[in-house]
Amino acid sequence: MSSGVITGIGELVTCDGTGGDQLGIRLDAAVVVEDDMIAWIGGAAAAPAADTALDVGGRAIIPGFVDSHSHLVFAGDRATEFAARMTGRPYDGGGIGVTVAATRAAGDDELRRLLAARIAELRALGTTTIEIKSGYGLTVADEVRSLRIARQFSNETTFLGGHVVPPEYAARREAYVDLVTGPMLEAAAPHARWIDVFCEPHSPHAFDGDEARHILKAGAAVGLGLRVHGNQLGHGPGVQLAAELGAASVDHCTYLDDADVEALAAVADTTVATLLPGVEFCTHSPYPNAARLLAAGASIALATDCNPGTCYSSSMPWVISLAVREMGLDPAQALFAATAGSAQSLRRTDIGRLVVGSRADLAVLDAPSYLHLAYRPGVPIAKALPAFAETPAE
Amino acid sequence: MSSGVITGIGELVTCDGTGGDQLGIRLDAAVVVEDDMIAWIGGAAAAPAADTALDVGGRAIIPGFVDSHSHLVFAGDRATEFAARMTGRPYDGGGIGVTVAATRAAGDDELRRLLAARIAELRALGTTTIEIKSGYGLTVADEVRSLRIARQFSNETTFLGGHVVPPEYAARREAYVDLVTGPMLEAAAPHARWIDVFCEPHSPHAFDGDEARHILKAGAAVGLGLRVHGNQLGHGPGVQLAAELGAASVDHCTYLDDADVEALAAVADTTVATLLPGVEFCTHSPYPNAARLLAAGASIALATDCNPGTCYSSSMPWVISLAVREMGLDPAQALFAATAGSAQSLRRTDIGRLVVGSRADLAVLDAPSYLHLAYRPGVPIAKALPAFAETPAE
Repeated sequence: MSSGVITGIGELVTCDGTGGDQLGIRLDAAVVVEDDMIAWIGGAAAAPAADTALDVGGRAIIPGFVDSHSHLVFAGDRATEFAARMTGRPYDGGGIGVTVAATRAAGDDELRRLLAARIAELRALGTTTIEIKSGYGLTVADEVRSLRIARQFSNETTFLGGHVVPPEYAARREAYVDLVTGPMLEAAAPHARWIDVFCEPHSPHAFDGDEARHILKAGAAVGLGLRVHGNQLGHGPGVQLAAELGAASVDHCTYLDDADVEALAAVADTTVATLLPGVEFCTHSPYPNAARLLAAGASIALATDCNPGTCYSSSMPWVISLAVREMGLDPAQALFAATAGSAQSLRRTDIGRLVVGSRADLAVLDAPSYLHLAYRPGVPIAKALPAFAETPAE
Repeated sequence: MSSGVITGIGELVTCDGTGGDQLGIRLDAAVVVEDDMIAWIGGAAAAPAADTALDVGGRAIIPGFVDSHSHLVFAGDRATEFAARMTGRPYDGGGIGVTVAATRAAGDDELRRLLAARIAELRALGTTTIEIKSGYGLTVADEVRSLRIARQFSNETTFLGGHVVPPEYAARREAYVDLVTGPMLEAAAPHARWIDVFCEPHSPHAFDGDEARHILKAGAAVGLGLRVHGNQLGHGPGVQLAAELGAASVDHCTYLDDADVEALAAVADTTVATLLPGVEFCTHSPYPNAARLLAAGASIALATDCNPGTCYSSSMPWVISLAVREMGLDPAQALFAATAGSAQSLRRTDIGRLVVGSRADLAVLDAPSYLHLAYRPGVPIAKALPAFAETPAE
């Protein structure tokens, strides 16, 4: 067992507060880490000795970001599609097929190298847990391959055979749903913790409410937890379906009516509304009102949806700045949603908060306060702690 | 004389193109640098030998960003003011006084250390030229001190005694204008290339059109070039004043009427409209329509306005992503405005473009194309080249 003590902390954000101080901020605190766990938190003057010591020079320490929605296993990029969309072309999900073709064509080593680079990038921006979906394979072999590679980097892997209907099944949707719920699920399940589906009647490529229910129930039957892409391109059945089936998370929630908000409030202990404002930024969509969800009593999370089509950003600080500018959250609500909220959406209690016994997944800010995450938009001030220790600030 | 050759360039953006390809993109190109100048550009196969060689592995090379509007000499921060504004408090320029007090109280070494850290940060985000204003001193001694310190890092220094009327002159505005145009200008001019004024009748702290004209004419009389903060908080006389006096730049341009757009088009060779979308982001203001300015024939630039109140970001890539998402620019127009456009606003022909004889101010992208500047929002993919060479990508 090796231990380390962190001192010089300007502001320790535990995300374990109550009432008016949800962030549980402690000043003059120190943290002792043993192996991968937090062993002690207390006043700096009372900190016990440890094998190693790190003085962060007045910087803030926060729980590492929990990015609970990403599509990181892919080859190729879609920069020209993005540029066209910025000048007026609408998004309907059809571009996913471009990435499916590029991903199928890539070798295992290439996919692993690309994923490793993306993981390094997001750690350098302060993220310590990343959920990774398949969904750019869409054959039994390619979905299993994506999940096996993802599992080398994260335990939070999600089978997304139900991302879109691939071109070769365009005239046989029912046969594709049979494949996803049959042989593909059977082969993928050992490599996944979750199943997800793009429930979106507004896209000809995605799945309607009945298809989505069928796919999710098949996943639940083999022990996978449920996640849903819902209500992204227009109002749809995704949110209600997630609430009905007890999904851990329903993601996007761009278009919500009053009944959706009520449903999310009623299942706040079970189902988290995961907001992805980077997607609204990159697809010229309206931003959902996160403040309204909180006021109603719903649980919310923030994530990047990092993917080559609708949001090729791995930056949780940038997502927080958007949530504050565009979605009605204050900086404390946004940070809580990006850490403890996202942890809830993954049904994890060992991450997203800094308490004795939790994982020592820390991020350090090159700033004295968490407020700077929104106050310094576009500036990479957060780093996952080991990465920071390797490159100390000047 | 030392020389270096850069090869493996995925896409060389020269910003020296014509017609439909304003960016002047070259593929399979190499660049030879001698000391601080570009000595040769041509096909990679024909590249001459040089003392050192750098292979950038398929990455794109662009002109380093020219950030033509910043307020980097200051102490303290205003994170709590920012958080309050995000949840509803309006901005009227009054917070500047908070930074004035903190800056006056700071020692020279402290101001120099803070500025050095900010310069390192913006270089790590791809900026190679930075304009720096005074304006947080507002006494003769404090303005001169700010400019002397700024001059140690940049030749593009701007005297901004006319930032706001400081509290001690609140009841004697005329006396403060006399100070700015008299002893303060005389002492500051040797340390400045430019004079600027916050022309804003919508703020009780800033200057109206007549005061601004008086301040700018005094600066011109001692040989300073003219810049104007105009039309930020509402429609005002700033744009027309800049056009009338032949200012090099009028900055913000948040609120423009048809006559303003026409005036900017008529003086496109002389006066650049410098857009600062980070300020609109951080003050919850509407974004100006940059596409309308270009369609009318105006010259535009993009800059950060990095300052502790209304936009504490040093990231030109983030500014480009906002200009594309919110202001109607396509990615090529935005990059041109952030390089060649900003260079025009500083009346420089040796920066902002990559041609033989220009300064070797290069930025390298951790991406194959400039499109990724907007496509990967919040991700720090650009670095000024020497900084990049010190920390090669994995």
